[in-house]
Amino acid sequence: MAEKIYRVNMTDLTSSIEDVPAAWAAHGGRGLTSTIVAAEVIPTCHPLGPNNKLVLAPGLLSGTVAANSGRLSIGAKSPLTGTIKESNAGGTAAQLFARTGVKAMIIEGQPKEDKWYSIAITPDEITITEETELIGRGNFATIEAVEARSEEKRAILTIGPAGEMRMASANVSVKDPDGGLRSNGRGGLGAVMGSKKIKFITVDPKGGKVEIANPDGFREANKTFAKALVDHPVSQALGQYGTNVLVNIVNESGGLPTKNFTLGQFDGHDAISGETMADTITQRGGKIKHNCHPGCVIQCSQVYNDADGNKLTSGFEYESIWAMGADCCVDNLDHIAEADRIMDDIGVDTIETSVAMAVAMEAGVLEFGDGAGVCRILKEEVGKGTSLGRIIGNGTGSVGKAFGMTRVPVVKNQAIPAYDPRAIKGIGITYATSTQGADHTMGYTIATNILNVGGKLDPLTKEGQVELSRNLQIATAAIDSTGMCLFIAFAALDDEKCLPALIDLINARFDLSLTGDDVVNLGKHILKTEREFNMKAGFTSIDDRLPEFFYTEPLPPHNVVFDFSDEEINTFWDF
Amino acid sequence: MAEKIYRVNMTDLTSSIEDVPAAWAAHGGRGLTSTIVAAEVIPTCHPLGPNNKLVLAPGLLSGTVAANSGRLSIGAKSPLTGTIKESNAGGTAAQLFARTGVKAMIIEGQPKEDKWYSIAITPDEITITEETELIGRGNFATIEAVEARSEEKRAILTIGPAGEMRMASANVSVKDPDGGLRSNGRGGLGAVMGSKKIKFITVDPKGGKVEIANPDGFREANKTFAKALVDHPVSQALGQYGTNVLVNIVNESGGLPTKNFTLGQFDGHDAISGETMADTITQRGGKIKHNCHPGCVIQCSQVYNDADGNKLTSGFEYESIWAMGADCCVDNLDHIAEADRIMDDIGVDTIETSVAMAVAMEAGVLEFGDGAGVCRILKEEVGKGTSLGRIIGNGTGSVGKAFGMTRVPVVKNQAIPAYDPRAIKGIGITYATSTQGADHTMGYTIATNILNVGGKLDPLTKEGQVELSRNLQIATAAIDSTGMCLFIAFAALDDEKCLPALIDLINARFDLSLTGDDVVNLGKHILKTEREFNMKAGFTSIDDRLPEFFYTEPLPPHNVVFDFSDEEINTFWDF
Repeated sequence: MAEKIYRVNMTDLTSSIEDVPAAWAAHGGRGLTSTIVAAEVIPTCHPLGPNNKLVLAPGLLSGTVAANSGRLSIGAKSPLTGTIKESNAGGTAAQLFARTGVKAMIIEGQPKEDKWYSIAITPDEITITEETELIGRGNFATIEAVEARSEEKRAILTIGPAGEMRMASANVSVKDPDGGLRSNGRGGLGAVMGSKKIKFITVDPKGGKVEIANPDGFREANKTFAKALVDHPVSQALGQYGTNVLVNIVNESGGLPTKNFTLGQFDGHDAISGETMADTITQRGGKIKHNCHPGCVIQCSQVYNDADGNKLTSGFEYESIWAMGADCCVDNLDHIAEADRIMDDIGVDTIETSVAMAVAMEAGVLEFGDGAGVCRILKEEVGKGTSLGRIIGNGTGSVGKAFGMTRVPVVKNQAIPAYDPRAIKGIGITYATSTQGADHTMGYTIATNILNVGGKLDPLTKEGQVELSRNLQIATAAIDSTGMCLFIAFAALDDEKCLPALIDLINARFDLSLTGDDVVNLGKHILKTEREFNMKAGFTSIDDRLPEFFYTEPLPPHNVVFDFSDEEINTFWDF
Repeated sequence: MAEKIYRVNMTDLTSSIEDVPAAWAAHGGRGLTSTIVAAEVIPTCHPLGPNNKLVLAPGLLSGTVAANSGRLSIGAKSPLTGTIKESNAGGTAAQLFARTGVKAMIIEGQPKEDKWYSIAITPDEITITEETELIGRGNFATIEAVEARSEEKRAILTIGPAGEMRMASANVSVKDPDGGLRSNGRGGLGAVMGSKKIKFITVDPKGGKVEIANPDGFREANKTFAKALVDHPVSQALGQYGTNVLVNIVNESGGLPTKNFTLGQFDGHDAISGETMADTITQRGGKIKHNCHPGCVIQCSQVYNDADGNKLTSGFEYESIWAMGADCCVDNLDHIAEADRIMDDIGVDTIETSVAMAVAMEAGVLEFGDGAGVCRILKEEVGKGTSLGRIIGNGTGSVGKAFGMTRVPVVKNQAIPAYDPRAIKGIGITYATSTQGADHTMGYTIATNILNVGGKLDPLTKEGQVELSRNLQIATAAIDSTGMCLFIAFAALDDEKCLPALIDLINARFDLSLTGDDVVNLGKHILKTEREFNMKAGFTSIDDRLPEFFYTEPLPPHNVVFDFSDEEINTFWDF
């Protein structure tokens, strides 16, 4: 199956299947989306205008049987941050894209008429069809209806009402193997898809197999690789408690942002912890373990049922639970799960929207701790696009501006996630310097600052944090290009066989002889490509800063501030 | 009366009267506010946080009998644009500040408690008093109540509900000689005052006289200067029709932005023109001529009565009438006047708010042309701080983001005013390069592009526009430092006696021997000081651009786009 570029022009509703330019051939996933966005998108364009492009790319190993290789990268200029953006998620799309021979899909232009469309991808064809029935529908109803239209088990990517309304926190959602959703959540990529008037995209399952240059080498490397993943203690904890294993751990560290980033610990942490969640799931007959894409050996997802034993939500992540829980002071896991489901259905990023809700609470829109109020606002305001709904649906920075607030936890207008940068300083460097706004996944220093993976580095001291974040951001950019889930990083940092096995997988797939240095250079190249785009869009090192209050308001219980000088932060880019 | 710096710290509610530092001595008005903001405000601070400072300064000639010298400059870091900001207005404050010996007033810090205050200035004292009665009140009721508290004819500066709610379009309003209002309107300075919890400031009328070093020379120069102003035909047109004389002129040019900047001419232009307005005022017993500050010899203000002969609004400017009229397609002058009065009372910038309303109309919030709807939304939503009111009250960019729009006429997030930069290209250079976001008053090329003042330059050609804008921006920065109204520029450009007389006034006041070159150098120095602040705040030349749609959507009737290259725009700063 030769790989091709699938290009769709929504201005004139045409499409083409093109050869892969030589400069793009070695790239996949984030490396490819960022390369294409940097090459084809005018950095100063309006993110919701016809000059922006939405680029979808499976990773280098997606579509193979390599463990955990099912992440799909989506890139564009972000309507939330104004920077280049890549967000990746599981689900079934990456693997079907790869098997269909789609190296990348580029969606450009914008319909002039007020009509909506769907796009269907098969190995030979791109079909653009006007859509009317599903406009305005939530993601779950949309997926159900699209599934009912065909007996094939197609991959489905959708936007909810938030994406249709071009809200800056809107997701692109991807169906998981069981009809649940995974979200390309950060940075408002769903609004870009909405601006191009595309309600959903399907990918046909009739694609062939991904060619493997050296099948025996591939099989051997995958065995080693999968074993390293399965054996790592963090993988095991993730399988048992999900990512939400972190609530108690981060709370203990004093870095769990609580009550809109005014405290580092949450009194209600036990009630929303991974341990409580696992017990509740077991009692109610949900699933402790669940995979977000076929081939995952960690299975950190889960199915969370309501008190009556009916499925309430799945893919119930630590960052979502932290944001709606500790940051909003909601200590009721059922309210949080309901909010999570509503956000999935509307199609908004759970981090962006929940952090926005906490700022709205500080502004007096509702009381801290009012979980039922949160659900009502999500459903009746955000989902329906009322004025308050638009304020919240456009993210944390939007709420801060609307109500004239100063405690607004964003970097490059993207909400800061679940680790306070005052008490966990390494992650603060990642938030500040990331090419994409505040994002823990860009350089997850929590591994070494908190989990003692890849060594230990005291989260409260400054020393070594810039280097730690730099090394992790470089490695992450490379990993995000493979289609691998970021959770392979724990094993990669601790098990000396893991990373060589991953490189062997790539070499066996493409008949290459990459070394570890090549991977590091790939990561560096991606970061620099992204940063260069941002510079052309008007960003400078002055945008690589945390909000003022992190420098001036000490965070209990450690009573620490973020105390890196501008010069210290700027050394991040010395590579 | 020795000039002093009056400093108020709102964090600990202390104040001091300080000597003027040598570096500030030669500055006044905008030159002084920008010098102080650049010296004392951290460029990256949150505009609504305790590290921002609100700086008020009368001009170098304010408080003297020099014609038209009653403008008060207010500066800060703008919550709307994030840039340095100076906005100046008439009213009675500049003259009383100067006579009280206030070279500048600097308000810093922020109360920790949720209490409101007023500040009273006398020659010897600064008094900070807690205020409860007037919180939540509109500007007119506030001024009436403050006037009723004292028999003295004090100057009064206030914020309305918009400033209290820290909306980014909030004015600082200044009482005019008759109880009407003038507005330091652009850039949300009222939100900065509100963030410091100051409802109003009064200035005592018991100050002495401003010392004049050479009274005879001053008197002589003022005679020449005033004659030049009075004799100029534009001054005379302004006295007869107000600034609204421009509606028909700009409409004729094809550069009257209409229906949210989609057309260059407005069918209803006659109904909202200065000519119609003057007839209406005459019929209803209003005032055609009215001065916004004592000593004005142009008197472009007016009092506009309703159909029953009761005062509806005053200071009814072209840009406000254009924005609520042509840009919103409202062709009913009474609706526009009512909207103007409501905006004055709430305390929001009429340009920012009305352009925001036009974007809201395009977004479907209300119909184009619905003047009654505009008044309702201003009163019930903006004035009361509902969610929709906050979206609109935070300006045009805020509305664009809330509704995911792409036709959003702002530069550096400040609304583009009443002259379309596609059909009047010189003003486009001013909008793009101004240190303060889109603002016609920063370099009013309309003079030469449309009014044939200071020569003629075809508005539709690119040649010479950068130079024109540059020369006017430099001159304007200097004029804004004198306390002079910008409308002296018409005479200064055409009458060779005008500018020397203005320089003679300054020399006679301070016993100096400034030349024309010194004035030009002062203007250049101010622009560079402002730009340097912005660069430190994170701005680059990439922010010196118009929104994308001006480059891609031709404007009828000339069907022209804004076609300056980035490089051409950047040459603005070659001085």
